[in-house]
Amino acid sequence: MRYFSGLSVPDAFIAFRAKGKTYGIFNALEFGRALKEAALDVVLPFEPLRDRAKQRWPESSPGPAEIVMVAAERFELGPCLVAEDFPAGLFEKLRSRGLTVAIADGPLLPQREIKTAAEARAIRDSNRISAAGIGAAEAVLKKSTIEAGKLVFRGAPLTSERLKFAIDTACLEAGGVSVDTIAAGGNQACDPHNRGTGPLRANQLIIVDVFPRSNRSGYYGDMTRTFLKGRASEAQRALVDAVATAQKKALGLIRDGVSGKEVHRACVETFTGRGFETKSTPKGSVGFFHGTGHGLGLAIHELPRVSGMADSTLRTGAVVTVEPGLYYPGLGGCRIEDVVQVTPARPKMLSSFHYDWEIR
Amino acid sequence: MRYFSGLSVPDAFIAFRAKGKTYGIFNALEFGRALKEAALDVVLPFEPLRDRAKQRWPESSPGPAEIVMVAAERFELGPCLVAEDFPAGLFEKLRSRGLTVAIADGPLLPQREIKTAAEARAIRDSNRISAAGIGAAEAVLKKSTIEAGKLVFRGAPLTSERLKFAIDTACLEAGGVSVDTIAAGGNQACDPHNRGTGPLRANQLIIVDVFPRSNRSGYYGDMTRTFLKGRASEAQRALVDAVATAQKKALGLIRDGVSGKEVHRACVETFTGRGFETKSTPKGSVGFFHGTGHGLGLAIHELPRVSGMADSTLRTGAVVTVEPGLYYPGLGGCRIEDVVQVTPARPKMLSSFHYDWEIR
Repeated sequence: MRYFSGLSVPDAFIAFRAKGKTYGIFNALEFGRALKEAALDVVLPFEPLRDRAKQRWPESSPGPAEIVMVAAERFELGPCLVAEDFPAGLFEKLRSRGLTVAIADGPLLPQREIKTAAEARAIRDSNRISAAGIGAAEAVLKKSTIEAGKLVFRGAPLTSERLKFAIDTACLEAGGVSVDTIAAGGNQACDPHNRGTGPLRANQLIIVDVFPRSNRSGYYGDMTRTFLKGRASEAQRALVDAVATAQKKALGLIRDGVSGKEVHRACVETFTGRGFETKSTPKGSVGFFHGTGHGLGLAIHELPRVSGMADSTLRTGAVVTVEPGLYYPGLGGCRIEDVVQVTPARPKMLSSFHYDWEIR
Repeated sequence: MRYFSGLSVPDAFIAFRAKGKTYGIFNALEFGRALKEAALDVVLPFEPLRDRAKQRWPESSPGPAEIVMVAAERFELGPCLVAEDFPAGLFEKLRSRGLTVAIADGPLLPQREIKTAAEARAIRDSNRISAAGIGAAEAVLKKSTIEAGKLVFRGAPLTSERLKFAIDTACLEAGGVSVDTIAAGGNQACDPHNRGTGPLRANQLIIVDVFPRSNRSGYYGDMTRTFLKGRASEAQRALVDAVATAQKKALGLIRDGVSGKEVHRACVETFTGRGFETKSTPKGSVGFFHGTGHGLGLAIHELPRVSGMADSTLRTGAVVTVEPGLYYPGLGGCRIEDVVQVTPARPKMLSSFHYDWEIR
């Protein structure tokens, strides 16, 4: 709805395209702002349509379906196409009111996958915010000391929570909001969506994954670096090197026309070639058990996907994350993530932060 | 999904109840964490079900519908009921695969409207975070000076953005994330969802609406106070007094069995009784043109509603905001919002912050 209308609206509203024009219907709470800010051809007030629906169906209090029916009549809408994630309840009610509605096969707005230059700039700017967060984490780790195997920052144990607070504050200062930031060490980091809790230790891999939303544009950034405070073991170095190599290989393959599966396979092969096997166990999986990347935009996960599961072809203009990772409880987890825009040749980097990871 | 599973999961997953047991199906990325943290009777790995679906329908790559069909067979699911906002695409595919699916009339999990003691405590704690944000805004306004009609803080113009940064940082420190915080002054505040931009001025009403989500619990807080730095006019005082009176009247009416409409009507009558009319104009509405309140929980807007539009009866245990407001460009906007839990007698306050608003 935000992509289509150019407006961020907290509640549900009605929007559609008909005969080449885009329409939005907003209640009194949003109408004034929509009139000023929406990127729609026609902005309509909700209340007159609701009143008309009340006259039409006086027996029931009119809901969204009835409002849409009134709009359909007024704008002479023919058969309608809705997105896959359109609410099923409204879908059924519209049908029972006599509207012809079908579900789009694939995305309703396929052009969303291809980012404009302005969108790419917005995502790059959001990754400036991500980098501010990752930089804040690195600065805290640099300033921390090691006492009896544990990290200490400003006289108190350095916990995942304190590290996330430093990251989130830096993102806020840089103009974005980072929710569900990950700063997880040791075995916690082997659960890729574990955000991390409690004290961080020396000599363990710490995954820092920061995906803020820009307050200005609404677009997301998404970057990950893996740090270690202290001294890495040879096994940890081999792990990090495998991930870094896989990421470089994936970045080298990304160009217009390549399939997401092919990029993903290159990462898998890098890992198996170095003896890093992927296995599922009754307690969870080890190795590389998530996709290599995903589209990024107004949503944190959107099309196209870069994974072994889905068939998607990367097209010029698409923006994707590239984030292979390896996870072995006991040894630790490592993920390195950047964001690129697909071009006919080498992808354009939309994120930037150095790759040094051992902090003494 | 979070309410049902007790787990915060960034991506879509499958969950259902059958024969009195609750089930969740999680891919490798979430399975380990779900096993440890989900409040479900049975946590299943996604991949074996996907493999089974592949065998069953080798001609197509299996999607969520096919996975659900395999689960439906394995757990002998009968006719299924889904929520109104269930994705229409999946709904249609399940039907075409032969599953009997109907849409719940009203909420799928009606017990969600009635908060347990633990949920009420979580919401109260989230409003501690809201209050930290509002307190930070008040502190900045107190420390600000007035220069040529404009507010100045630490040597620079005080803007809505700086005020929001102070609020959001305080929320972060207090353990929550505040997105879309509102700190809007003057005419901007007359658009209730305008978040505010640019310099704040002396002698104007400034609406501060803070609705953070607790990192720990996932529950929202939601509080609003209206401040004025400088000296209020008699008209501004009459406006604020009307809103404060309406809010007190609404709070006094809330108890088990009362209708949301009745509470809302009391606010409307308070306003019209004092000459504050509600009108819609081609440029937007003035007066009181939003609901009096809404349910609050894991979502910022949930059931029940306290408005003139929807028929809902407040029941013991429900948690709602009470937030009448008045908006007149030229004069300004005022909204005062607290959160209460419905009881058989006086509602239990789940938010707390003083009501002084004129800051000299």
